[in-house]
Amino acid sequence: MTVLESMTELARAAKKASRELAALSSDAKNVALNAMADAIEANVPALQEANAADLVTGKELGLSEAMLDRLQLTEPRILAMARGLREVAALPDPVGRKLDEKRRPNGLRIEKISSPIGVVVIIYESRPNVTADAASLCFKSGNAVILRGGKEAIRSNVLIARLMTDAARNAVAGFPESAIQVVPTADREAIPALLSLTHLVDLCMPRGGEGLIRAVTACSKVPVIKHYKGVCHVFVDREADLAMAEAIVVNAKCQRPSTCNAMETLLVDRSIAPGFLPQVAKALSTYKVKIHADEASIGILQAAGQTNLKPVQPTDYETEYNDYEMNLRVVDGVEEAITHIGDHGSAHSDAIVTRNEKTARRFLSAIDSAAVYWNASTRFTDGGEFGMGAEIGISTDKVGARGPMGLDELTTYRWLVYGQGQVRQ
Amino acid sequence: MTVLESMTELARAAKKASRELAALSSDAKNVALNAMADAIEANVPALQEANAADLVTGKELGLSEAMLDRLQLTEPRILAMARGLREVAALPDPVGRKLDEKRRPNGLRIEKISSPIGVVVIIYESRPNVTADAASLCFKSGNAVILRGGKEAIRSNVLIARLMTDAARNAVAGFPESAIQVVPTADREAIPALLSLTHLVDLCMPRGGEGLIRAVTACSKVPVIKHYKGVCHVFVDREADLAMAEAIVVNAKCQRPSTCNAMETLLVDRSIAPGFLPQVAKALSTYKVKIHADEASIGILQAAGQTNLKPVQPTDYETEYNDYEMNLRVVDGVEEAITHIGDHGSAHSDAIVTRNEKTARRFLSAIDSAAVYWNASTRFTDGGEFGMGAEIGISTDKVGARGPMGLDELTTYRWLVYGQGQVRQ
Repeated sequence: MTVLESMTELARAAKKASRELAALSSDAKNVALNAMADAIEANVPALQEANAADLVTGKELGLSEAMLDRLQLTEPRILAMARGLREVAALPDPVGRKLDEKRRPNGLRIEKISSPIGVVVIIYESRPNVTADAASLCFKSGNAVILRGGKEAIRSNVLIARLMTDAARNAVAGFPESAIQVVPTADREAIPALLSLTHLVDLCMPRGGEGLIRAVTACSKVPVIKHYKGVCHVFVDREADLAMAEAIVVNAKCQRPSTCNAMETLLVDRSIAPGFLPQVAKALSTYKVKIHADEASIGILQAAGQTNLKPVQPTDYETEYNDYEMNLRVVDGVEEAITHIGDHGSAHSDAIVTRNEKTARRFLSAIDSAAVYWNASTRFTDGGEFGMGAEIGISTDKVGARGPMGLDELTTYRWLVYGQGQVRQ
Repeated sequence: MTVLESMTELARAAKKASRELAALSSDAKNVALNAMADAIEANVPALQEANAADLVTGKELGLSEAMLDRLQLTEPRILAMARGLREVAALPDPVGRKLDEKRRPNGLRIEKISSPIGVVVIIYESRPNVTADAASLCFKSGNAVILRGGKEAIRSNVLIARLMTDAARNAVAGFPESAIQVVPTADREAIPALLSLTHLVDLCMPRGGEGLIRAVTACSKVPVIKHYKGVCHVFVDREADLAMAEAIVVNAKCQRPSTCNAMETLLVDRSIAPGFLPQVAKALSTYKVKIHADEASIGILQAAGQTNLKPVQPTDYETEYNDYEMNLRVVDGVEEAITHIGDHGSAHSDAIVTRNEKTARRFLSAIDSAAVYWNASTRFTDGGEFGMGAEIGISTDKVGARGPMGLDELTTYRWLVYGQGQVRQ
């Protein structure tokens, strides 16, 4: 069997399962999710054994310590996976919501109803806990999922999926086993093969570094929801509360710099730069933040006795540092800030700090990003923080879900039309 | 300049225009649309002159009479274009609608607001009126549009777009001229070049035959919203009102067979087939409908004296005839109908005719199509019939808009977050 043939078989089974999922009640789905959680909790030793074999392979593959740490399934991590499954069970069913209703003059009643997307492929890197998270969110939203983790995690991923499907099958009559499948091969050709099956696969969500996401997008013939990177900005307006601005900037950069919603570039209005830049630079120096500064900022900060500055390079403005490192630029007001963000940003999360409502409204209306903030840190772009209950990823796309994606964002809709024999004139 | 360079220039201008469009008020957009309508009405002779040159080229290219007819801009057609522009002006602005609002325990207020998608590429075949329709809907929804019509219509399309942009620029300060652009070259390489610009183009909507749509989808690196074809079904259940079923079947097939929401396959429950098939075949014979029938249907219809039947071939079930031609199959109840539609349908529009609510509910929940009907003709899947006011196309995709696409479906959303200095813990 070629890779294309085996991927077609996998996807065909997923398609069939996706139809069977449509017939499961919310209660049945929740019983299945809780049974999955029980099975994960009951199998800590087996999961650690499979994971230990993955860790050996990971060392042979020369993974870094950080990567090996991400790969490892400690007991607390396993129990957290189970807890996550129970949390998903407790969330409302996203399928069957009435999104709109119309009554037409000819008597037709038209309902717009949320529905599962169908077959979703998730491609991710090393953390095996993503297997349980992603599978549970897809299952709850009525989608069949095909999971493709890193090759170093394949034993852990396969076992997690098997425990989940076995438990669900025993707990719920009619649970389709192919609702949750792991691509069983590490063959690189599996991804383009799977993503060529436009008649069977409805959506692909890659999660990982920009390289992975670009490679997936380049080969996919099915729709992809993704964000390439998070180059987020904070603009401090001339009418900002400077203590608030300092707190927001430090939080946006330093609270967790490895995340996609951390700030990469700070834009400061020229008229307040002489006072604000030394203040914020001092606050950032507590975290040893490396600053790539434009000429105007360097002038001001050197005059204030700060010397540890690198001149910013043009490509820096499009770089996601994922670290205690950032760009700093002085701009002439909100319009220049808007232009900078449009030219260099990644349409993820951008903030303005100002007391002036008119300036804030201009920024909120002109910045075309998934999340736009007025007087708050960019770090809130997150399914949990937005009250979605769970998150499967963040999208900077404009077709389909945008921003944090929870259960609702894993659905599409159908139009149901109720007639009494109407025909078109 | 290479094709890629010139397409990049076009797309960059569109991106810039899309930002300027965000600043236009609803009133300004409507003034512009009405000015565009005036300009079209005032330039009937010039439009007919440009169109006459296109018609000469079309004849040289050997277009069929039907194609030449579609290409022709008669005076009524030109006036209808202008009327369409005024109708779009009269519709509510789809941008800025509050789709959701959340208040978080930390005091953040989060609004989900409808927003323009950005830069939309529309690829279509010969009818030049699509230029005005598509441009007006994209403009009203705040999107910059790049139009690529058939090469035989290029003079008509360029003039329509120029009249619209000139009129809008004169009527409205701040109207960005590059909001509406026509690809100025007939070079085939223009399409893949344009659709490789993931950082500038947000969406592509191809409109036309399956060949065009498949070619666009295969080369595009940007999201595509489309429907390949419309293979729509009517299932007549054993508990159907047979007079209603006959009327719906005849309407779904014959009212306008060239449309994508016309019925291609009729499925009839075995228990009513002996009575219903001769009845419906007689009604269809009024329109000289050619029937590809399965063995069971042929048996019944021949016994009833009907002879003009072709045995159905397996690929027929996936064929969009676009003509007075259809498939007929006898099935064992609603479950077999659901399986048939899932296996062979195009997820466009499918109907059940039945008096039994439980059977109808099963069909409505199991058929994963953009529009699912109970006791009505499939021909209602249409923006106007759904009360959307205007339609730019129909989508059978599940990511982004699904079913008829009006102004609302040409928007995405942004999350606007209002704080008082909140930072993440």
